[in-house]
Amino acid sequence: MDFSSDTSASAHPAVLEALAKANTGTQSSYGADDVTERVRALLLDTLETDDFEFWMCASGTASNALALSVMCSPTGSILCHREAHIERDERGAPEFFTGGAKLHLLDGPSAQIDETELREALDAIDRSFVHETPAETLSLTNLTESGTAYPVDTVTHYAALAKAAGLTVHLDGARLANALISTGSSVADMTWRAGVDVLTLGLTKTGAIGCELIVLFGDMRAKYPELLARAKRSGHMPPKMRFLAAQAEAMLTDNLWLSLAAQANARAREFANAICTVPGVRLAHSVDGNEVFAVLPEGLAEHLQKAGGVFYPWIDGSHRFVCSWATTEQEIDALRSALAG
Amino acid sequence: MDFSSDTSASAHPAVLEALAKANTGTQSSYGADDVTERVRALLLDTLETDDFEFWMCASGTASNALALSVMCSPTGSILCHREAHIERDERGAPEFFTGGAKLHLLDGPSAQIDETELREALDAIDRSFVHETPAETLSLTNLTESGTAYPVDTVTHYAALAKAAGLTVHLDGARLANALISTGSSVADMTWRAGVDVLTLGLTKTGAIGCELIVLFGDMRAKYPELLARAKRSGHMPPKMRFLAAQAEAMLTDNLWLSLAAQANARAREFANAICTVPGVRLAHSVDGNEVFAVLPEGLAEHLQKAGGVFYPWIDGSHRFVCSWATTEQEIDALRSALAG
Amino acid sequence: MDFSSDTSASAHPAVLEALAKANTGTQSSYGADDVTERVRALLLDTLETDDFEFWMCASGTASNALALSVMCSPTGSILCHREAHIERDERGAPEFFTGGAKLHLLDGPSAQIDETELREALDAIDRSFVHETPAETLSLTNLTESGTAYPVDTVTHYAALAKAAGLTVHLDGARLANALISTGSSVADMTWRAGVDVLTLGLTKTGAIGCELIVLFGDMRAKYPELLARAKRSGHMPPKMRFLAAQAEAMLTDNLWLSLAAQANARAREFANAICTVPGVRLAHSVDGNEVFAVLPEGLAEHLQKAGGVFYPWIDGSHRFVCSWATTEQEIDALRSALAG
Amino acid sequence: MDFSSDTSASAHPAVLEALAKANTGTQSSYGADDVTERVRALLLDTLETDDFEFWMCASGTASNALALSVMCSPTGSILCHREAHIERDERGAPEFFTGGAKLHLLDGPSAQIDETELREALDAIDRSFVHETPAETLSLTNLTESGTAYPVDTVTHYAALAKAAGLTVHLDGARLANALISTGSSVADMTWRAGVDVLTLGLTKTGAIGCELIVLFGDMRAKYPELLARAKRSGHMPPKMRFLAAQAEAMLTDNLWLSLAAQANARAREFANAICTVPGVRLAHSVDGNEVFAVLPEGLAEHLQKAGGVFYPWIDGSHRFVCSWATTEQEIDALRSALAG
Repeated sequence: MDFSSDTSASAHPAVLEALAKANTGTQSSYGADDVTERVRALLLDTLETDDFEFWMCASGTASNALALSVMCSPTGSILCHREAHIERDERGAPEFFTGGAKLHLLDGPSAQIDETELREALDAIDRSFVHETPAETLSLTNLTESGTAYPVDTVTHYAALAKAAGLTVHLDGARLANALISTGSSVADMTWRAGVDVLTLGLTKTGAIGCELIVLFGDMRAKYPELLARAKRSGHMPPKMRFLAAQAEAMLTDNLWLSLAAQANARAREFANAICTVPGVRLAHSVDGNEVFAVLPEGLAEHLQKAGGVFYPWIDGSHRFVCSWATTEQEIDALRSALAG
Repeated sequence: MDFSSDTSASAHPAVLEALAKANTGTQSSYGADDVTERVRALLLDTLETDDFEFWMCASGTASNALALSVMCSPTGSILCHREAHIERDERGAPEFFTGGAKLHLLDGPSAQIDETELREALDAIDRSFVHETPAETLSLTNLTESGTAYPVDTVTHYAALAKAAGLTVHLDGARLANALISTGSSVADMTWRAGVDVLTLGLTKTGAIGCELIVLFGDMRAKYPELLARAKRSGHMPPKMRFLAAQAEAMLTDNLWLSLAAQANARAREFANAICTVPGVRLAHSVDGNEVFAVLPEGLAEHLQKAGGVFYPWIDGSHRFVCSWATTEQEIDALRSALAG
Repeated sequence: MDFSSDTSASAHPAVLEALAKANTGTQSSYGADDVTERVRALLLDTLETDDFEFWMCASGTASNALALSVMCSPTGSILCHREAHIERDERGAPEFFTGGAKLHLLDGPSAQIDETELREALDAIDRSFVHETPAETLSLTNLTESGTAYPVDTVTHYAALAKAAGLTVHLDGARLANALISTGSSVADMTWRAGVDVLTLGLTKTGAIGCELIVLFGDMRAKYPELLARAKRSGHMPPKMRFLAAQAEAMLTDNLWLSLAAQANARAREFANAICTVPGVRLAHSVDGNEVFAVLPEGLAEHLQKAGGVFYPWIDGSHRFVCSWATTEQEIDALRSALAG
Repeated sequence: MDFSSDTSASAHPAVLEALAKANTGTQSSYGADDVTERVRALLLDTLETDDFEFWMCASGTASNALALSVMCSPTGSILCHREAHIERDERGAPEFFTGGAKLHLLDGPSAQIDETELREALDAIDRSFVHETPAETLSLTNLTESGTAYPVDTVTHYAALAKAAGLTVHLDGARLANALISTGSSVADMTWRAGVDVLTLGLTKTGAIGCELIVLFGDMRAKYPELLARAKRSGHMPPKMRFLAAQAEAMLTDNLWLSLAAQANARAREFANAICTVPGVRLAHSVDGNEVFAVLPEGLAEHLQKAGGVFYPWIDGSHRFVCSWATTEQEIDALRSALAG
């Protein structure tokens, strides 16, 4: 009953097998290897376009920060939700990688940006007023930090508003697969067709060891050499790149990443259904992915912990329960038993 | 006959086995896992001291830059050899991580700093003269970029000179094992006993997938929280840390890293012996590790390439041939045949 | 009737005379001149202590940013009001000078930090949680951006709360003189006796050409060499320093800076009294210095502009009217006539 | 007999008069004032073109660093002479303002870059090799740090070489007027007609209080908004800009800056002629401006100091003697007397 985080989970066996398979003979370093080439081919299918460049990175924090550093200048700012991972959980990585850009925080329920907040922030931009730090990029997170999903329509609408104001659009997709499953959307619809310029596509929380993709679409491809230079100088260009690529290959092959996310989402729904049978329990947010945020009546948290449950209190007063690809039906059963006790 | 780089080699099977072994059940993220604890225990033996803190990082560039960023302020400079990896091959990573410190380049044959150059640079420091950028750190590399090894005595002597001038001492040990083998030295003698404050101990080139250790000795342990904060914000704190730790565990257990380096060094010596039988061949530098730098007579490079040899020309006019743990005696035999042809 | 800003005003004649007087013969560069020595002597009286170091700077933005850069590390954050100058009007200078620290924004009426907001922010600091960016410094502004003054008691209380949580305290005193006059306080009571560690004392808006003092008190004096190094590398160590010092000398002699602020405050009070005679006018904030923020009934702004008034709308819906040392009683009379029209 | 530096000199009376004249009534802040407009008009004549944008800055260090920060990316490098002011005397300002770019040092006699060194550095650039930091900008200094002048032909030739390799060209003209006088060249011929993209034109050492111009020519004008944003966030956008502009106006009117430089150069020539009458004295560098670098026989330096001479030893073993606009013929006579003694 470890619901602490999807990063506490082990990696899927297919990932380990891919590593072993990649571990034969010599390969060129720094991304010029055969496995990376196969990932590129898989991405053509996954993304339904060839109008992209990509880079692989072991760290989600670095992937976001590298993406933002080719989107926003040191003298600009990035619009994001107050609870976004880039604001709350990356120890100032965006500021570091961009060379001092600011995050401009917007509010809205369930970690989704409110449209009025967004419009007001966009309207307030005055590029001719040198004293302020104008917004250059909008960063959305899907799945959000509250486990909710923006539907494709909202991403498309917000991206259009941002672009009309001259901004570029970033999507932090650390748990993108979970959002795609619950909204029934394709990657293409949720990203480049919706107006997203740069995607960070997470595979770590979905089941890899540590592998995220930074994808530049369309015009942003011109930033690819800069992305590589910044990846190199921040230590995100490992010599034995094939081992990052092997993880991506395993996850993208036959859409394993989507299957694993579907599995985790299913467990989360079962979890929510189970815990909501307890009187006084209330879901703090819609369960649109693999995370359940539940407001618990007094004593329930302690009761579950005594029964072996591992999970954390959240800043909004709820408790967070995260399912992963590795969460079993047995664990949900164990939860049900604990709740019944 | 791929002598292009030790980073083109695959990882040692023990490393893959350790990954598989680590891949069971849930583990706390970000370094609070069991495997990391076992690495700490192994390091007690390896380093012959408990007066240290350490962090693991998948990237050698990041390991050096993180180490330097807790040693040198943004308004200071770092003394290093003109050919040091931190100067030539890291795309400005030290400048990025330190927030704009300068590298102050010193000369000397075979990528080793000349003592006179070092003394003059230390004598020239005037901390009261605010316009210049005073040296705060000396960075040595062992094995050097020319494949030569500083003996323990020189490291000890240079460290003493540096400390007398108020500097801290960093050792870039991307190929430390190779230098330890050829000089017959222990890690302890080459590092903290010699006056080294911070070590970056490379395991990637030695046989891991991607794993380097940053070790803070003695007084530098006070910088550990800062090191963690900087690791986090630069994306070098992977959630599933156990997979970095598993690599370190495999390599340190029974001193596998030293055995593999010994093997690579032996192949390099055989390589050197073989190629030196050709009239007109001259070693550009002493072969103190797993790298051979040979000045070739006209036509020899092309001849070897036609025979299937992979290797690169070097900036000093020689060609570089690198052996790794995976270089076989058969490859050396193949070289001998090619040379005989 | 130019009420646009105190930075639109000319400099006081005594400042120009001091420049002319300083312009004789050669003087050592970079602060080692006689005039700078005389400023030091004047500060002993002004600050009522000798436990300080100081530096002079032509820019208020740079003075704040330099001060903060020796107070807050690149991986920390600075608590300040949402409307603080360092957040809204300095184009990311604090982020730039600190190497990427974050500003953590607090709310409260009239640009003063609400105590509950401050307490919650301080309570939320968890230095052991490496993912977040812990507050290291509290920055207060007095006079605030809404023209209100924190009394000495509040500064003292907030500084004590901040220090109990391990923070250092910065005071942005771009209009400090105006706050001292209206609260009837001494510099010493408002700064070091209240627990302020670093003060940026503005003289430009008060009547100089461009001259601000960065003052390090007590333990922060240890940061003086770092402050000098950072001033040099950011271009805030002019060779002909005597001309900065001459401005400070003129302003501090016989407390000219306080007299000029008293004069500007008096004009602002007269302005407020005059405009409040108009039905429908409401003061948005208490007039504690040289700035009046008034909510105007429809048509009044246009009427005043036609009569020759220069002033700006403010983000809170009011209009801002700034008086300076150079604002004359005739201008207030002209305003009264215009209002009567 | 103060030959310590041209920054020890007072400002020319015309500069003080201009300040006093500018000190009337209110003026828009931040460069939107009348005086700045008049400077623009003067520059049209001085530069013989209208294809430029400019900014004014009180600091030479900041002017160079701001200029370089819009020319070279954080992942690029700047070619300059080993003895350039940007390398030796600015405490890492270029690294700070660019966000971590590197200076790539070239050699050559008398602080002038050797053509072979330049060609080799340009030839070595490999933009496809992500590990190295490719040169993006060439920075020349005229007058050099050894007091010598590049002729227009050399600047033109070097600029052409640099541009053929894809670099932009910066000219550090802290003592440009002195070089123009001795080479008999116009600003236009030495800068934009020679291929210079960005000029920092110093007026401080020539006779101002503190005023330098950053001039963007031709295509670089597109960087003007970025230059303003960077000036603002580094504290180099003073509110009362008119006082910077007044200095520039005074210096550019009737080419006062060139007259003052001619005067200083004449004194330096007289100085050189005088000191070279002493047996054993040797000029270390050609005297092409207002600086004399002389190798002195034993005892002469002490003798001159006892006679009241103020000057400094230089790193090349010579002594440096600097004349300014304020150096009088009487001082040269006094020197002659002292030498005769």
